[in-house]
Amino acid sequence: MTGPLHPEWIAVDWGTTHLRAYAMQGDMVLAEVSSDQGMGSLPRNGFEPALLALIGTWLADRPMEVRACGMVGSRQGWQEAPYRAVPCTPLDPAAMVRVPAIDPRLRVTIAPGLKQATPPDVMRGEETQIAGVLALQPRFDGVLCLPGTHCKWVHVSAGEVVSFQTVMTGELFALLSGQSVLRHGLQGDGWDDAAFDEALSDAMSHPSRFSARLFTLRAEGLLNGLEARVARARLSGLLIGLDLAATRAYWLGQPVAVLGDDRLAGLYVRALTAQGAAPGRIGGRVATLAGLARMRGAEA
Amino acid sequence: MTGPLHPEWIAVDWGTTHLRAYAMQGDMVLAEVSSDQGMGSLPRNGFEPALLALIGTWLADRPMEVRACGMVGSRQGWQEAPYRAVPCTPLDPAAMVRVPAIDPRLRVTIAPGLKQATPPDVMRGEETQIAGVLALQPRFDGVLCLPGTHCKWVHVSAGEVVSFQTVMTGELFALLSGQSVLRHGLQGDGWDDAAFDEALSDAMSHPSRFSARLFTLRAEGLLNGLEARVARARLSGLLIGLDLAATRAYWLGQPVAVLGDDRLAGLYVRALTAQGAAPGRIGGRVATLAGLARMRGAEA
Repeated sequence: MTGPLHPEWIAVDWGTTHLRAYAMQGDMVLAEVSSDQGMGSLPRNGFEPALLALIGTWLADRPMEVRACGMVGSRQGWQEAPYRAVPCTPLDPAAMVRVPAIDPRLRVTIAPGLKQATPPDVMRGEETQIAGVLALQPRFDGVLCLPGTHCKWVHVSAGEVVSFQTVMTGELFALLSGQSVLRHGLQGDGWDDAAFDEALSDAMSHPSRFSARLFTLRAEGLLNGLEARVARARLSGLLIGLDLAATRAYWLGQPVAVLGDDRLAGLYVRALTAQGAAPGRIGGRVATLAGLARMRGAEA
Repeated sequence: MTGPLHPEWIAVDWGTTHLRAYAMQGDMVLAEVSSDQGMGSLPRNGFEPALLALIGTWLADRPMEVRACGMVGSRQGWQEAPYRAVPCTPLDPAAMVRVPAIDPRLRVTIAPGLKQATPPDVMRGEETQIAGVLALQPRFDGVLCLPGTHCKWVHVSAGEVVSFQTVMTGELFALLSGQSVLRHGLQGDGWDDAAFDEALSDAMSHPSRFSARLFTLRAEGLLNGLEARVARARLSGLLIGLDLAATRAYWLGQPVAVLGDDRLAGLYVRALTAQGAAPGRIGGRVATLAGLARMRGAEA
């Protein structure tokens, strides 16, 4: 049996619905814990207890560096970390915001998000992943696609975020498949690649038909017994197609890398490949940790 | 004090979320009652009690004709009234479906909905309003727009429904304004016509930008304090613009009438007018009652 674990520092990814903490030794992950105490479920004074409950056993008598990113830095978070304006580097050590914790062992700083004036846009958390990509591939110049509830398309050049665009594709899929009349025909598992490809192509060629195609999924279920796996793949294809139609200026003719390990990221890779792009792929967790580690290295 | 009211017949508009009954003398409404006992909240054996609770005092010792339309005739309703296939007249007296009620005073029939094979589509309830429009304006030839949770565009010619198209515009607005991240910036009353017009025009000219414009509403709220009344009008304009972009083949160059008395119908009139159409307008309730009355007249 080993003694208690005392990492060198702690990396924290704190979003709206989740809290993930990593015990770090340099760039190496010693241990990983998570809870559902996301920003959205916590009052201002609930953040420190939520963090201590998760990482308490990692703390020693000396102060511990904790680097956090995500919605924990929003106006409704633990401490607001005001947005930095693009064009700028994704993270700036001097702009990390110190949180006044009660427990003297905690030395917490939060990474600020980024904002764009025109068209108006914001991000929180993704800036750290972008910094991580640049830590891993310092010469990356092109477009990053960060799929998720809100997919971010980010133009990166010369180590800076030049511009970005948020598309609510993941949230639209969740609302339509979980809460709309379409939900009746979308339950279950399974998938149909051909249906995804066809719907993707249709939405990109004829984005104006999007609204009309949605209810067709329901009607085909009622009239022709459309299978849920086909309907779900088709809805996903329509939404990602509309996303790619809106963000063509980002990915067309640019080097593109898709960030993420999950199924959704795989669909964006498939969709971009179908459109003639040759997207690279980078893990989401490794990018987050590399971004937080970089802040630490730069500050030290 | 008058004695109890015994109408000649009873008209019933029974949707997913509402139940409305009208005590009728010929085409005249003597009284009107409603409840929230819609199809969605009732088990199969709950329909007759829900109806009796609402209209019990209207019944005499003799059998009473009750004509119903809407989701009450769906597979999950009181009694399934199978869809009729277009092209066809909106209602056919011979196709009205008799419901076996337990109370001997009730003689209930339900109007079947319509289905379309290609592209697959269905309607329930709107067919009765269309029949009502034709009862009121027998020579109507053109396109009917029936706004609502699911907006229906219907091509009517020579007394028949030729084709139709459902667009989930109302449901998308409800989901996005009530449940998505956009809800934070959309609460309250108030409206901005200029914001609606601008967003409508933008969505129609560039439907491919739709996905990208959605999150902008949130970002402008965070960065520039975008007013809720402007954001709400803009979201509405984007969605109705995407609707009109999808249904251009229906309304462009056709005589169009918008059916409905409410605010949403007014927005479709405004949008169509901005696109150079000169839409007529017909009340929704009067159309429903005229449709149900016509079935009665035809059967008598």
